[in-house]
Amino acid sequence: MDKKFIAVIGGGQCSKEETRLAEEVGRQLAKRGAILVCGGLGGIMEAACKGASLEGGTTIGILPGDRSQTANPYVQIPIVTAMGYARNVAVVKSAQAVIAIGGSYGTLSEISHALQSDIPVIGLNTWSLSRNNQQDKSIIPAQSPTEAVDKALDLATSPKSEE
Amino acid sequence: MDKKFIAVIGGGQCSKEETRLAEEVGRQLAKRGAILVCGGLGGIMEAACKGASLEGGTTIGILPGDRSQTANPYVQIPIVTAMGYARNVAVVKSAQAVIAIGGSYGTLSEISHALQSDIPVIGLNTWSLSRNNQQDKSIIPAQSPTEAVDKALDLATSPKSEE
Amino acid sequence: MDKKFIAVIGGGQCSKEETRLAEEVGRQLAKRGAILVCGGLGGIMEAACKGASLEGGTTIGILPGDRSQTANPYVQIPIVTAMGYARNVAVVKSAQAVIAIGGSYGTLSEISHALQSDIPVIGLNTWSLSRNNQQDKSIIPAQSPTEAVDKALDLATSPKSEE
Amino acid sequence: MDKKFIAVIGGGQCSKEETRLAEEVGRQLAKRGAILVCGGLGGIMEAACKGASLEGGTTIGILPGDRSQTANPYVQIPIVTAMGYARNVAVVKSAQAVIAIGGSYGTLSEISHALQSDIPVIGLNTWSLSRNNQQDKSIIPAQSPTEAVDKALDLATSPKSEE
Repeated sequence: MDKKFIAVIGGGQCSKEETRLAEEVGRQLAKRGAILVCGGLGGIMEAACKGASLEGGTTIGILPGDRSQTANPYVQIPIVTAMGYARNVAVVKSAQAVIAIGGSYGTLSEISHALQSDIPVIGLNTWSLSRNNQQDKSIIPAQSPTEAVDKALDLATSPKSEE
Repeated sequence: MDKKFIAVIGGGQCSKEETRLAEEVGRQLAKRGAILVCGGLGGIMEAACKGASLEGGTTIGILPGDRSQTANPYVQIPIVTAMGYARNVAVVKSAQAVIAIGGSYGTLSEISHALQSDIPVIGLNTWSLSRNNQQDKSIIPAQSPTEAVDKALDLATSPKSEE
Repeated sequence: MDKKFIAVIGGGQCSKEETRLAEEVGRQLAKRGAILVCGGLGGIMEAACKGASLEGGTTIGILPGDRSQTANPYVQIPIVTAMGYARNVAVVKSAQAVIAIGGSYGTLSEISHALQSDIPVIGLNTWSLSRNNQQDKSIIPAQSPTEAVDKALDLATSPKSEE
Repeated sequence: MDKKFIAVIGGGQCSKEETRLAEEVGRQLAKRGAILVCGGLGGIMEAACKGASLEGGTTIGILPGDRSQTANPYVQIPIVTAMGYARNVAVVKSAQAVIAIGGSYGTLSEISHALQSDIPVIGLNTWSLSRNNQQDKSIIPAQSPTEAVDKALDLATSPKSEE
């Protein structure tokens, strides 16, 4: 387990530009020896898995549904949870850092679960948060796939012990 | 099942002012015949359950842990999921509308899961969201417990069918 | 929480005789002030809820699907987990004792989860178990609904602390 | 995804003989190119992962807890579900066949969840089941690790579609 596990999260549907970003994030993670964790479906998840696969990387898809065939074609290791969106917790908890690209409310739930567990979240064109009119700066911004991957790998350490 | 189920979500720790808001929300829900759903623990959850109980209402606590004794003393119906924060999905899915009071990342994950399922979320001093520098207006603001309960009961309808 | 919570588990499809047994179990639980917990669907679950409702009891249905409308008509408190069969854990953990009537593999998984948590299981025409050719006597047999309810209420105590 | 995923299930504590069986099952699976899925903890799970690792195989541990450090040292891919025993569903659903060795009620719940999903279960010195005094022959017996692995690989096909 000295490999780093990085989650890439984002919408099941996404723009062309987001697809490009996700594929490049996947490529960079694979080139640098990290294992890609994602929710296993289409959109950002598929683009990231494609990028990683093209560079010979390992891809894990933690699926909401109850059949491995629901995974995108670039998932090498499908985990079939059959638990719907409760699987979002497992996607982020299985990673040491998270890269969020675009995304809708499902992605926001994953960002929240990660931050709740002190797992660093790097954002590329994604949500920003404020609470009681004060900006919450927990999502670390990145301007490019390379910067996102740099920051994710840098921050990827074992989650803090609970005690 | 003609009763309305309303979830009250918020931090396990909260300020005095938030406690007051949550208790008043609980009272109003009970007075108006709604059933209170929450995560069953302390803070906002306990204050809301206390308010509802004082008015003779019914309170449901969907617990993350694996023992009913972890519920706050005002939970009448403890649901023991033993699933950790994956239970956040069940808290919001079991309601027809959600009132969010203050809260941290766990609350934000519940807001996200609700919005993802088209369940209306009313906010009292809670998160605000923006995406790609555009404000997301899905959280419906309220200025008082009464307004929050009014809006929640008004919007509480059966979730849309998936087809 | 001084009320006793008793789970009734069994198949979503069942014989006429099993339906009769389940309805009578539901009636007896309600008459004796216990709250009925079940998986919220048809068959044994519906018959038990019907029996309890006819006697003015309270019924909780912990549903696998993602809409409260999937509950049988006698469920008063639908809990929408959206987690599929992972909800079986919550069904038994939310009870202080379990009555199993007939049932197939889903029921067997609930029996197993209960026994793993030291929650007593009373069996009416249900599974019997052996391990390495030795009978496992953990499922407590009952010959009638009344005997099942007697034993369940007698054994229903708080689950042991984990420490 | 043309690799076969086989789950090995059994107790977190086990006898010396069971340890030997599990390690040999792990070795054989790896030698024959299958990927090992398990619950990621000690006992049978650790022995099977050790056997697979010694032969250069891939091992996946789907953990109940909320930290990857709870995995046994031979788990290469830890999936952190933080969902307690609800993860048992994911262990079996992520495999095309299951080999059960010994085991207690947790193992029995996994056997049940597998049979409920039409995933074949091969048994080595494990539970046997009967229902209404009729033996249930769904668990396919094996007399040796080699026979168990032969049967598992032979039966490992994609789970049936739900329609």
